Amino acid sequence: MYNHNPVFIPGPTNMPEALRRAVDMPTMDHRSAAFADILHPALDGVKKVLKTTAAEVFLFPSTGSGGWETALSNTLSKGDRVLAARNGMFSQKWIDMCERHGLDVTVVEVEWGGGIPADRFEEILTADKGHEIKAVLATHNETATGVVSDIAAVRGAMDAANHPALLFVDGVSSIGSMDFRMDEWAVDVAVTGSQKGFMLPAGLAIVGFSPKAMAALESATLPRWYFDVRDMKSNYAINGFPYTPPVGMINGVKIASEMLISEGLDNVFARHARIAEGVRKAIAAWNMDLCAISPELYSNSVSAIVTPEGFDANTIVSHASEKYGVAFGAGLGAVAGKVYRIGHLGSLSDVLALTGIATAEMCMVDLGLDIALGSGVAAAQEHYRTTA
Amino acid sequence: MYNHNPVFIPGPTNMPEALRRAVDMPTMDHRSAAFADILHPALDGVKKVLKTTAAEVFLFPSTGSGGWETALSNTLSKGDRVLAARNGMFSQKWIDMCERHGLDVTVVEVEWGGGIPADRFEEILTADKGHEIKAVLATHNETATGVVSDIAAVRGAMDAANHPALLFVDGVSSIGSMDFRMDEWAVDVAVTGSQKGFMLPAGLAIVGFSPKAMAALESATLPRWYFDVRDMKSNYAINGFPYTPPVGMINGVKIASEMLISEGLDNVFARHARIAEGVRKAIAAWNMDLCAISPELYSNSVSAIVTPEGFDANTIVSHASEKYGVAFGAGLGAVAGKVYRIGHLGSLSDVLALTGIATAEMCMVDLGLDIALGSGVAAAQEHYRTTA
Amino acid sequence: MYNHNPVFIPGPTNMPEALRRAVDMPTMDHRSAAFADILHPALDGVKKVLKTTAAEVFLFPSTGSGGWETALSNTLSKGDRVLAARNGMFSQKWIDMCERHGLDVTVVEVEWGGGIPADRFEEILTADKGHEIKAVLATHNETATGVVSDIAAVRGAMDAANHPALLFVDGVSSIGSMDFRMDEWAVDVAVTGSQKGFMLPAGLAIVGFSPKAMAALESATLPRWYFDVRDMKSNYAINGFPYTPPVGMINGVKIASEMLISEGLDNVFARHARIAEGVRKAIAAWNMDLCAISPELYSNSVSAIVTPEGFDANTIVSHASEKYGVAFGAGLGAVAGKVYRIGHLGSLSDVLALTGIATAEMCMVDLGLDIALGSGVAAAQEHYRTTA
Amino acid sequence: MYNHNPVFIPGPTNMPEALRRAVDMPTMDHRSAAFADILHPALDGVKKVLKTTAAEVFLFPSTGSGGWETALSNTLSKGDRVLAARNGMFSQKWIDMCERHGLDVTVVEVEWGGGIPADRFEEILTADKGHEIKAVLATHNETATGVVSDIAAVRGAMDAANHPALLFVDGVSSIGSMDFRMDEWAVDVAVTGSQKGFMLPAGLAIVGFSPKAMAALESATLPRWYFDVRDMKSNYAINGFPYTPPVGMINGVKIASEMLISEGLDNVFARHARIAEGVRKAIAAWNMDLCAISPELYSNSVSAIVTPEGFDANTIVSHASEKYGVAFGAGLGAVAGKVYRIGHLGSLSDVLALTGIATAEMCMVDLGLDIALGSGVAAAQEHYRTTA
Repeated sequence: MYNHNPVFIPGPTNMPEALRRAVDMPTMDHRSAAFADILHPALDGVKKVLKTTAAEVFLFPSTGSGGWETALSNTLSKGDRVLAARNGMFSQKWIDMCERHGLDVTVVEVEWGGGIPADRFEEILTADKGHEIKAVLATHNETATGVVSDIAAVRGAMDAANHPALLFVDGVSSIGSMDFRMDEWAVDVAVTGSQKGFMLPAGLAIVGFSPKAMAALESATLPRWYFDVRDMKSNYAINGFPYTPPVGMINGVKIASEMLISEGLDNVFARHARIAEGVRKAIAAWNMDLCAISPELYSNSVSAIVTPEGFDANTIVSHASEKYGVAFGAGLGAVAGKVYRIGHLGSLSDVLALTGIATAEMCMVDLGLDIALGSGVAAAQEHYRTTA
Repeated sequence: MYNHNPVFIPGPTNMPEALRRAVDMPTMDHRSAAFADILHPALDGVKKVLKTTAAEVFLFPSTGSGGWETALSNTLSKGDRVLAARNGMFSQKWIDMCERHGLDVTVVEVEWGGGIPADRFEEILTADKGHEIKAVLATHNETATGVVSDIAAVRGAMDAANHPALLFVDGVSSIGSMDFRMDEWAVDVAVTGSQKGFMLPAGLAIVGFSPKAMAALESATLPRWYFDVRDMKSNYAINGFPYTPPVGMINGVKIASEMLISEGLDNVFARHARIAEGVRKAIAAWNMDLCAISPELYSNSVSAIVTPEGFDANTIVSHASEKYGVAFGAGLGAVAGKVYRIGHLGSLSDVLALTGIATAEMCMVDLGLDIALGSGVAAAQEHYRTTA
Repeated sequence: MYNHNPVFIPGPTNMPEALRRAVDMPTMDHRSAAFADILHPALDGVKKVLKTTAAEVFLFPSTGSGGWETALSNTLSKGDRVLAARNGMFSQKWIDMCERHGLDVTVVEVEWGGGIPADRFEEILTADKGHEIKAVLATHNETATGVVSDIAAVRGAMDAANHPALLFVDGVSSIGSMDFRMDEWAVDVAVTGSQKGFMLPAGLAIVGFSPKAMAALESATLPRWYFDVRDMKSNYAINGFPYTPPVGMINGVKIASEMLISEGLDNVFARHARIAEGVRKAIAAWNMDLCAISPELYSNSVSAIVTPEGFDANTIVSHASEKYGVAFGAGLGAVAGKVYRIGHLGSLSDVLALTGIATAEMCMVDLGLDIALGSGVAAAQEHYRTTA
Repeated sequence: MYNHNPVFIPGPTNMPEALRRAVDMPTMDHRSAAFADILHPALDGVKKVLKTTAAEVFLFPSTGSGGWETALSNTLSKGDRVLAARNGMFSQKWIDMCERHGLDVTVVEVEWGGGIPADRFEEILTADKGHEIKAVLATHNETATGVVSDIAAVRGAMDAANHPALLFVDGVSSIGSMDFRMDEWAVDVAVTGSQKGFMLPAGLAIVGFSPKAMAALESATLPRWYFDVRDMKSNYAINGFPYTPPVGMINGVKIASEMLISEGLDNVFARHARIAEGVRKAIAAWNMDLCAISPELYSNSVSAIVTPEGFDANTIVSHASEKYGVAFGAGLGAVAGKVYRIGHLGSLSDVLALTGIATAEMCMVDLGLDIALGSGVAAAQEHYRTTA
């Protein structure tokens, strides 16, 4: 009841009050002209956040997973071959979605903690002389392991192989928190959700379609209606929506985009990097390791911390919740029980990050790990105070 | 800026303050035990509103249209035959969805303003000796025409034909406003959305699956992942969700259900009937007709009013918006320009209904229709004051 | 629970959502620089609403009554003579306050429904050759009777008598709704509250002090601390407050002023006049009289309606509340039971005014008055539709 | 814009969301029966928080300072003698108020950091054979110095002297956070405000009057109207208010009382003591001193920390605000520049207290004080984790 504690889950994030208010709108007539003044600025704002001028943006009432399905069902047909790496829970789920849609997935298995192997992709794509692979799927930031992959390198692999496949990127936990360059990387479908970098409640899939992806709409034969980009496009053109739009959420995207752009995207990314680095300094002070196996893979939106062998990392999460009223993220899938996660994306300050670090320390000491109270906090404090 | 005027669109409805607050929650950890205390009461509340004990309820982050797709893709396979009547824009859209999913739709054309012809359904079902028809689709309340169809009669037709097809009912603009009896009518999939009888923002599809519908999950081969009921079911069992749940919206369903049940469903329906009847008294006083062609078809959630030949009904809607800041519903599809609609579902009082009636009168007089100012209001006043 | 009905009491008014949000601020440090960015724009905004450049404005956490006490205790001393007219409940209360502070009040009794008799004031002031009268009190808008008095005429009387007394004006239910010209009328202390023309919750007295009133601060010997203008002034100069400021309410004044000024004060007054005139057209259609005895006294913020002899006007108020969930104002003091009041100030639209009129009609018919349903509504509709 | 940081000023406190919502009410008719359902539970709740059954409670739209004036003006007359200790800024202000009201104040000067000297009070009261002293003023918690005085001892001194003076206690920053026993301590007027232990915005003075204080109402001749307890009492008896009540704020008192009582007052006090002790452990780890000169004087609502000679404590406050967006309290009056204050009252958790401690550490290190980062945090962590 009294709990003001911020959450340290890797999304949904802590929400700025301005965005809660943007979403919490009184009912308006979504068929009126006023809707256009919400919808189009929201779409334009997303384009800026995606760093695209070429793509078209669509907002589907759903979660980021609905964005994945939008990517697949609007561009592919049953039996189409796609290429993907499996390096965490969320890439795994997208692969599962492909399979349930009758796609033929070439899966590159990667150690959880590793990134997308661009070189291996290049080999496979080069070998695909017949261009049977219609799409490459890339999870920009694996939320389960705190690993950010190099999308420019994936694009480089595709170009090196001179391969015409579409490039689909899951940027759910990266877009708005870490640099994302849709046009420069020639991403064909970019997918995110409202509840991460946009700092809103869950409930909207935000997708960008490149002209090349748009060109695939008519040839794709996977059945679709709810997620059909064609209906979105034709309705937007008349300031409409193919069904009842969640106006408040769309207004949230509009205002969130304004906030991000007003702060400056590079400043936003630098802020996330700085807060994340403080968390990593704390982890180093604890003599613990990240799940991400090398520094260039470290995510600025979430850190997955490996606990000692024989220790159940999940107990930290439940202990923090029960004793301190603080939410961390549990390990998922292959790393369940082996890592716990501190989310540091969205709306968070350096001093509130210290709350999370201090709470993690107390939990680890409470549960018998050999950690000095204050050690991680001091390391993060030194980072924050010298970089503020 | 100063506008407190209620909306008179047929959904989203005016929202009670308690529900806006229920939705506008601070971020919580959706993987914590606290989520269970929101999810399960919401599901149980919906069951009560659907008048079902046998069905399982699922909440998808989407609109009611996503509920339609949930019904189809979880129970049917490409090429399956379905039976539906086309008597308005929303039945038309559902038919279109079927066709885009490769279903074979037997469409019964009905005058817009008419209801589902149960007798014609019985003939077709009786003729379908091979039971090729796998599902019957019924739009309980055609929002476009203000027509409520007799679902018990549709069920009766199916029983009379001794036909095993599934019965899918679109109750988007009826459930929570007018009587709906999922178990008694043996409805197999019931679909609604958050923004009508539940008085919430758009953003959730609310669906009920009968045991018979659940039994069809494994045999259905339409591709699905986002709307896969199996993942919802298995996640609910562990207090989870297959992707990030919109917790505030689910909390809204919980609280809205409590409000409806606390008032008493029959009282809720009587309240809607009383307010609707006042609107109809006004329409009669204006010597105008409803689009619905006979009284048993009159909807208690929306009234579609036929304007004189040669008059563009849409001008009433735009005029009301521009001059008075009041939102009515325009005619859609086949009745575009021929009707305008007064929505009277969700959170509305008798005295606020008079605002809508009075505004409609002013608009019609402004636009040259032969209406006496105050005439409809007086008829509605007499109804309201004698029935309060 | 479902009640969205607007209130028709003469304040507090219906609040625009933007102002509820302005008031509902998270806690901030009121000793920080950020407070200055709220306080000073609020003070400047009030000056514009008061149409003054000469006066200083002060905001006291209290109600408008605290503003009355601020006027008296900061400028007067025990035994000082003041002149006031008693023409309603609120002028009566202010006179009572004077008496409890040991002031010597010369009361001019006026029929309730009459305005301040400027000619009688001139006689008394002219007769006061020794200038014993230190202050003239004037209630601009008598909320109890719906009477607006002519403050320019009061000033004219003082000038004609060449009398140096201070002029204190209670503008609680006029300022922000009807024209008020502090400088032009040479008002020395203007008093209002947050809950009327500023459309905020109750809780702030808003006062303006002319240079002449400021000059009286040091000579006044009535004891004061909480309402001491000197402490307010000295604290404002350092962006402070003499005690903990209600920051949200002050922010509300800032934003409300912006809204009023953005709309244009003359447009705001015209809007109130137009809505009020519609209510008066309805009253005329009912063949009923206003308590205000002549048209130039008609208030644009509240109408007090005289009910027939032998009829208890209070029953309309209780009946409206119980049966229809609508709040009207009861008669107070000398006109209790003889009038009921429809407030039409603050945030209200023409179409919502019709709700009030229609509800009043139903109540009067329910209670046996000889009124035709729809008659008042039709008269108001005609006014609204032809003047929108 | 993104700032979610809690405040560490000694009031207004961080507000629970439930209380912000309690205050942010739509407009209701304050003359309706519904107001009684807010007012009386609020008054009853306050009685429980004050631990009184004998006293009457009144809520004035004002700040706590208005409560001081209510105490004085309702019970005393010009020239009456009162006894008070001056040990901080707030006792100083109350003394100033007495003097401006023409009271004859016997001031006992006390080192800032000291408590009320009950023994000295006993001497003075014993010497006052003629019982000229009409009231003893006691500041329970000096917010400026973080000193809690022993009110039971003050009462003991009065009883030992067999003195009939009234006992007025300023409990603004103690009531609701630390134990307060109005009846047991025979307090005659207890004063608090809405923005401290009640966790609401500023804007309400909350006062309790003992039967003995009530008996003084008629004999007191200080002029009063706004703060006249008699009008409050007579209006409460008819579910009214002497002027427009701030209904939302009163509703806030109702709900805040429910929250405090539901948690259990002793649990609330223990929570504050525990959080405060963590802050004190940190201060000790920094080798710094509290302004309060001995442990029994340590306040559980605010800690004033003495900075080294030659260091301007105010720089910590401004630095924290500018660099980290965190609000601490500056030193006031005689201790300005010598102390800074960490408020830990109202709605705060142990883990958020760590944010304040960690921020203070960074500021002190930034500004050149010899503090080890993490040292205070570690001491507080150890306290919190072993006492949770």
